[in-house]
Amino acid sequence: ERSSNPRGAGAGAGGGGGESRVPEIRKDSVQNRWVIFSPARSRRPSDLRSKFSTSTGNPPDPHSQNCPFCLGNEHLCAPEIFRVHPSHSAHWKLRVIQNLYPALSRDELPVQPEQVDDESSSKTSSSSSKIGNNKVAGFGFHDVVIEAPFHSLQLLDLSPAEIGDVLLAYKKRILQLRSYHSIQYVQVFKNHGASAGASLSHSHSQIIALPVVPTAASARIDCMKQHFEQTGKCNLCEVQVDDLLIDESAHFISIVPFAATFPFEIWIIPRDHSSHFHEVDNEKAVDLGGLLKLLLRKISSQLNDPPYNMMIHTTPFHINPSCLTYTHWFLQIVPQLTIVGGFEVGTGCHINPIFPEDAAKVLREVQL
Amino acid sequence: ERSSNPRGAGAGAGGGGGESRVPEIRKDSVQNRWVIFSPARSRRPSDLRSKFSTSTGNPPDPHSQNCPFCLGNEHLCAPEIFRVHPSHSAHWKLRVIQNLYPALSRDELPVQPEQVDDESSSKTSSSSSKIGNNKVAGFGFHDVVIEAPFHSLQLLDLSPAEIGDVLLAYKKRILQLRSYHSIQYVQVFKNHGASAGASLSHSHSQIIALPVVPTAASARIDCMKQHFEQTGKCNLCEVQVDDLLIDESAHFISIVPFAATFPFEIWIIPRDHSSHFHEVDNEKAVDLGGLLKLLLRKISSQLNDPPYNMMIHTTPFHINPSCLTYTHWFLQIVPQLTIVGGFEVGTGCHINPIFPEDAAKVLREVQL
Ligand SMILES: Nc1ncnc2c1ncn2[C@@H]1O[C@H](COP(=O)(O)OP(=O)(O)O[C@H]2O[C@H](CO)[C@@H](O)[C@H](O)[C@H]2O)[C@@H](O)[C@H]1O
Ligand SMILES: Nc1ncnc2c1ncn2[C@@H]1O[C@H](COP(=O)(O)OP(=O)(O)O[C@H]2O[C@H](CO)[C@@H](O)[C@H](O)[C@H]2O)[C@@H](O)[C@H]1O
Repeated sequence: ERSSNPRGAGAGAGGGGGESRVPEIRKDSVQNRWVIFSPARSRRPSDLRSKFSTSTGNPPDPHSQNCPFCLGNEHLCAPEIFRVHPSHSAHWKLRVIQNLYPALSRDELPVQPEQVDDESSSKTSSSSSKIGNNKVAGFGFHDVVIEAPFHSLQLLDLSPAEIGDVLLAYKKRILQLRSYHSIQYVQVFKNHGASAGASLSHSHSQIIALPVVPTAASARIDCMKQHFEQTGKCNLCEVQVDDLLIDESAHFISIVPFAATFPFEIWIIPRDHSSHFHEVDNEKAVDLGGLLKLLLRKISSQLNDPPYNMMIHTTPFHINPSCLTYTHWFLQIVPQLTIVGGFEVGTGCHINPIFPEDAAKVLREVQL
Repeated sequence: ERSSNPRGAGAGAGGGGGESRVPEIRKDSVQNRWVIFSPARSRRPSDLRSKFSTSTGNPPDPHSQNCPFCLGNEHLCAPEIFRVHPSHSAHWKLRVIQNLYPALSRDELPVQPEQVDDESSSKTSSSSSKIGNNKVAGFGFHDVVIEAPFHSLQLLDLSPAEIGDVLLAYKKRILQLRSYHSIQYVQVFKNHGASAGASLSHSHSQIIALPVVPTAASARIDCMKQHFEQTGKCNLCEVQVDDLLIDESAHFISIVPFAATFPFEIWIIPRDHSSHFHEVDNEKAVDLGGLLKLLLRKISSQLNDPPYNMMIHTTPFHINPSCLTYTHWFLQIVPQLTIVGGFEVGTGCHINPIFPEDAAKVLREVQL
C-alpha cells in the first residue's frame, strides 16, 4: 500500500502561478473526453517524479545471454519480417519480427463473423438482436520492432537518424500491412518500463494490425469531422499553442494538449496537414527522430526516467477520401506517473493533478 | 522488469476446452468497444493469480494509530456528511465524509463555462471555433465512504446486511446530490489495493458528483438506445446468460460479460428493469450485499486476493424520461491482473487473455 501522505494541496506543479488555481473540467475535442484538472490533488513537483524509475534496479547489461532481442540471439525469436542492415555496418541495426505470442492470428480463421461494424464508433450492431452477439474472427498481425541490437541502448540513446530509421521501419511495415484488404487500422505503440506494460527491457516497440477500426480511432474521426463542419478547418492544423508549446522542429511541434488525460502527456504534431503516419518521408523521419529524442530526454531527466507509453495515432486505411481533409496524425507520449483507479475505469474521465500549461512550462524550460 | 517467461500458449485458463481456441474480437454492445480475446497470450490459471496480493505484506493492523478512517480518529478527517450508527451499537458502523483532497470544488466557481456539452458524447463543441476552448468550472462533490470502523475489516468480511448498509449509504448520498440541479452524474467507485489506486488500506469507497455526463455514460446510453430501437427491448433485461452465468440471487444475476474488457471482470445486474441505482430498496440492498460478498470471496480465493476496482454504472439524473425504458444500472467488478499497455491506451481496445466463458466457469465452480 502507498502511504497516506497528504498531497501538497492547492499548489500547481512546476511553478507558474498554480497556487490560486481552482479545479477545471476540460473537454479533449480530438479524443472526445472530459478531463478533471485538480490542483488540490497535485503533488509537489518533486513528488511527481516517477516512483518506478526504469533505470534503477536494472543493472546495465550490454549483452544479455537470455534476451531474445539481443544481437546473436536471433534464433530465440519468432520469424523475422525484415531487418535494417546498413552497408557500412557489420551487423543489423534493427529488426522487425513476428510476435511469439501474438494477440491476433495471421491465418484467416473459421469463426463466422456475425457482424462487422463499419467505421463509425457510434454505430453498433444492426443485425444482431441480442447483447453479446457481435464478434469477428481474430485475424490480424502482431509484430515486434527491435529498435537496437544491444541491450544497453534505449530509444533516447539513439541518434536522430537512428530514431528516424525506427520510424521508417514502422512506415515500411504499415505499407506492407496495407496490402491486406481486411486490415482496417494499424496501431504502433511502445511500452517502456514494467509498469507501462513492458515484459522485456531490451528496447522495442510493437505493431498490431486490426480487422476493425478501434473505438478511439473512430471517436477521433467523429470529433475532427465535427470541428471541420463547424469551422472548415482541420482541428490539428489549427491547434492552439500559446503556453502549451514545448519544442518545435522544422516539420513538427510538440505540446502538452489543452485537455491532457495524463500528467505530462505530450503530443507531437506534424506542422503540415497529413492524415497518415505512413506519409512521413526520410527527411521528416530524421527531424521527428530529433524532436522525439529531445522530449524523451527531457521526460527522463525531469521525471526520474519514468515508465512511458508511446502511441502513433493515424487514420484508418479504408476511409472515405473526403475525410482526409480533417484527419491529422500525431504521436502521443504518456509517462506513467499516476495510477488509474475506479473513477477513471468507470467514467472514462481522468483526474489530472497537473494543469497542461504548468507541465508545458516545466518541459519547455528543462536544462539538459 | 517482469521476466520474459513464455506464456502458456494456446491453452484457455481454467479448463473448459480452450486448447484449440483461436483469437476472437468481440464487441461490447453496452459500452461500445472492441475487445481482443487472445488464447496465445493466456497464462496458465495459476499464473493469472495476482502477483500483487493485497493481503501479503500488510500486517494485520486492527487499529492503526495513524489511520484517519479508524474509529477514534475522526478528528483527522475532513468534515462528516453523515454516519450510520445503529441504536444497539456503541459506535458508528460507517461514515460518509468529505474527501480531504477533493478532485472538484463544492463552491460555485468563477470560471466561465465557454461550452457545456449536452448528454450526447458524440457531440462536441458547437460554439467554440478552436481546439481546446471547451471547459467548465470544476464544481462538484467528492466524498469518501468509510465502510467499517476497524482497520482489519475488508468489505468481504462484512455481513450481507452490513454490505447492504454501505450500498444504502451510497443511495442516501446520491439522493442528496440529486438536489443540486447542476450535478449531472454520480460515480460510485471503490479502489482496493495499491495497484488498483488505493492510497489507504482501511476499507473505503468514493463518490464523485459531476457537472457533466462522462463519455462512458453517454456511450452506454447511445448503445442501449440503439439496441432498443432495433429490438424494442432493454439490452440488459435481455442479457444472454448461458455459459456466462456465475451466481444468482433473488433480485440479481452475476455474469462475466460476453466482451469482458478485463480478465475475470464481473457484472452484477438487477433482474428487474431499473435505470438508477438509487432505486434500490432495503431488501434488494441486503440481497445485493450477499451476492457481492460471495463474488468478492470467490475472486479473493481464486485469484490470490487481487487488487480490484468496483464501479456502479447508473443513469444520469437529467435524462429524457423516454430513455428510462432502455437504461439499466449495473455494478462492475474489475480485478487488476494485467497491465494496461500502449495498445490499450492508444486504441481503447483491450487484449483479454481469458475467454469470458472460461472465467465464468472458474468463478461458478470455485469451492469456498
Ligand atoms: N484525513 C482524510 N479525510 C478525508 N479524506 C481523506 C483523508 N486522507 C485521505 N483522504 C482521501 O481518501 C481517499 C482515498 O481514496 P483511494 O485511496 O481509494 O484513492 P485516491 O483517491 O487516493 O486515488 C486513486 O483513485 C483516483 C480516482 O480513481 C485516481 O485518480 C488516482 O490516480 C488513484 O490513485 C483519497 O482520495 C484521499 O484524498
Ligand atoms: N522470443 C520472442 N520472439 C518474438 N517475440 C517475443 C519473444 N519473446 C517475447 N516476445 C514478445 O515481445 C513482446 C514484448 O512486448 P512488451 O514487453 O512491450 O509488452 P507485452 O506485449 O508483453 O504486454 C504489454 O502490452 C500489451 C499491449 O499493450 C498489454 O496487453 C499487456 O497487458 C502489457 O503487459 C511481447 O508481446 C512478447 O509476446
